[in-house]
Amino acid sequence: MIGVVTLTTDFGLADSYVGIMKGVILGIAPGAQIVDITHQVRPQHVQQGAYIVQSFAPYFPPGSIHIAVVDPGVGSARRAVALSTPEASFVGPDNGVFTYVWRDGLARWGVEQCVAVELTEARFWLPHVSATFHGRDVFAPVAAHLACGVPLNQFGPRIPGLAEVELDEPAAEKDGSLSGRVIHVDHFGNCIMNITREHLTGFDTETLRVEVAGQRVTGLARTFADASSGTLIALFGSDKRLELAMRNGNAAAALGVDIGERVRVMR
Amino acid sequence: MIGVVTLTTDFGLADSYVGIMKGVILGIAPGAQIVDITHQVRPQHVQQGAYIVQSFAPYFPPGSIHIAVVDPGVGSARRAVALSTPEASFVGPDNGVFTYVWRDGLARWGVEQCVAVELTEARFWLPHVSATFHGRDVFAPVAAHLACGVPLNQFGPRIPGLAEVELDEPAAEKDGSLSGRVIHVDHFGNCIMNITREHLTGFDTETLRVEVAGQRVTGLARTFADASSGTLIALFGSDKRLELAMRNGNAAAALGVDIGERVRVMR
Amino acid sequence: MIGVVTLTTDFGLADSYVGIMKGVILGIAPGAQIVDITHQVRPQHVQQGAYIVQSFAPYFPPGSIHIAVVDPGVGSARRAVALSTPEASFVGPDNGVFTYVWRDGLARWGVEQCVAVELTEARFWLPHVSATFHGRDVFAPVAAHLACGVPLNQFGPRIPGLAEVELDEPAAEKDGSLSGRVIHVDHFGNCIMNITREHLTGFDTETLRVEVAGQRVTGLARTFADASSGTLIALFGSDKRLELAMRNGNAAAALGVDIGERVRVMR
Repeated sequence: MIGVVTLTTDFGLADSYVGIMKGVILGIAPGAQIVDITHQVRPQHVQQGAYIVQSFAPYFPPGSIHIAVVDPGVGSARRAVALSTPEASFVGPDNGVFTYVWRDGLARWGVEQCVAVELTEARFWLPHVSATFHGRDVFAPVAAHLACGVPLNQFGPRIPGLAEVELDEPAAEKDGSLSGRVIHVDHFGNCIMNITREHLTGFDTETLRVEVAGQRVTGLARTFADASSGTLIALFGSDKRLELAMRNGNAAAALGVDIGERVRVMR
Repeated sequence: MIGVVTLTTDFGLADSYVGIMKGVILGIAPGAQIVDITHQVRPQHVQQGAYIVQSFAPYFPPGSIHIAVVDPGVGSARRAVALSTPEASFVGPDNGVFTYVWRDGLARWGVEQCVAVELTEARFWLPHVSATFHGRDVFAPVAAHLACGVPLNQFGPRIPGLAEVELDEPAAEKDGSLSGRVIHVDHFGNCIMNITREHLTGFDTETLRVEVAGQRVTGLARTFADASSGTLIALFGSDKRLELAMRNGNAAAALGVDIGERVRVMR
Repeated sequence: MIGVVTLTTDFGLADSYVGIMKGVILGIAPGAQIVDITHQVRPQHVQQGAYIVQSFAPYFPPGSIHIAVVDPGVGSARRAVALSTPEASFVGPDNGVFTYVWRDGLARWGVEQCVAVELTEARFWLPHVSATFHGRDVFAPVAAHLACGVPLNQFGPRIPGLAEVELDEPAAEKDGSLSGRVIHVDHFGNCIMNITREHLTGFDTETLRVEVAGQRVTGLARTFADASSGTLIALFGSDKRLELAMRNGNAAAALGVDIGERVRVMR
């Protein structure tokens, strides 16, 4: 059976760009199960794309193939790459959009089981490659050939590493607090931070204070329904990161914050 | 063959939440045919979700499985449920989102053929259940197991009834008029009301008057093209409910009305 | 194997209209591979729909079936049609939405291999046809029966031609310049014009000037990355039409232009 191919892009939904990629995939791999993750990564926001890719990959069946196209450098000298871990394969531009999944893969399985190749074998691309739409001309056909069982090493030479985006890891401050950032704002206005449970080891979750945009929340809630309507809460969200939320409201709008906003967690 | 699983949520399309649910489904039921209905139910608007679920279910092949996640009470004491009628199965929170399909099912097939269970059998869930994302941890895996043929009674004990939202049925007034409400505004600005043909038995469709937001429409049109551009019309729409529309325009915007607006139909 | 059915509509994504069409298709053609192209054609903008349909069709595998529903005249006397070329079949209203693909088909394969029929055989429709939603009642079931292998001539009598929208071809001016128009603005704000390479035969791509909304660009770039951030450029885009773009910006917003805007290319 031909497997799952997912799509994560900044193409939006009003054009035919995404549909075109699907047509190309189905022409090469007729039975492929194509899944849209999102096409609303902020235009050319590679860092947000990297966060998104890492957020869903663990929930797909082994062997799934994930295309990510957030590609401001299309047509320039930036490389095109494919990588594979024991969990999944990934296809896209080498601009940092795979930073998280690559690092996570190396940490989890080691360098022996994480392979990256530069896409150089033009026989797996569309016959004519444009300078502006490698999603259609390179990434979709490569992913489709992967789905058909072509081994990764056929697509080009192995490369030792990938381009990475700055990951904005939280920093321990001298006063014992932790300073971090908002890395994603979701549809409900929940503000997701670059802070995981591990980062908060040693903090008391009942008394810690989260400070953002002049507002302060004390203690962590367990779920949205724990708070009264309109109250700002902090909790570990479904991807195990710290997030700010507002019951029956939009925390990002209420706070006036967006991706990049500084956050501080105090003991 | 593994069947159809549909998704109706208020998750929006900018995050990976919907994609994650699809990954979970495909991990359990690899050949499932997943169909998005909409992910733009207004955030936590259970009543609108209930309307949407009822609007599409009759058009799917028998045996389809419909997941609905509009779930402000996730992580609280609200139950998780699955139900089945001779037509379809439904999986989601027990908060009223299935009010219409449950009542319709009971009315059409009787209590013997409409079964609801509380989801209590954790072996059909993801191993770790979060407090904030039961769509991923409970509803998607249960729907996938249903699609694989696990019988409904395996998922938990039968329950006699479901939580229901207030349905806002139209009311007959003393003066012979009918008062109702707008229950959905669609992409074109058409305002769909809680009024069906049955409610207007005895009204003359050529002379009745529909009054909303200080505007009055006399008589019902048959289709949008019956009116001149920019004219407000009333007609029975594609789901057999009364709706207000504007040819080549947006009735909701022109009238300044939204879900909840009061409507009156006079003889 | 049952083939690919694509959907292009102006229905938006907030209602269940698109989901309903998919349910109808899957009820008739259970294994159909349904692909969304876009549901965000501007409401009732047939010309934009015609551009979109033509933009993706060549990238799908032969035999694919494309439904297009941008249908302001639903319920009126406008015909319903299906057409086929050696490449694909198309199903929708006869209002011009197939203008480009029909002309392209005739130009490429000749009248012998391009067949259009009026949809008159009600046995391939839903039992009840509403006056407002032929996407559900006529086009989806016809496309599904086509996907199951019913020959085109079963759906109704052959017709010699189709309704067409005005195509807004660019015009050669007396001073040797070419005047055209913006026919699509994409998610990135790129302004796509009705001007192809053929129209610019004899122009020097290094010295030509593109004038729009009082701004002038000299010479054509090869890709977005060729320009510095915020600079307006002109280039042949991925569908081989001339487009205006802004590196790391939104050309349409910066210029204040939209579909229909006049453009001039000077030698």
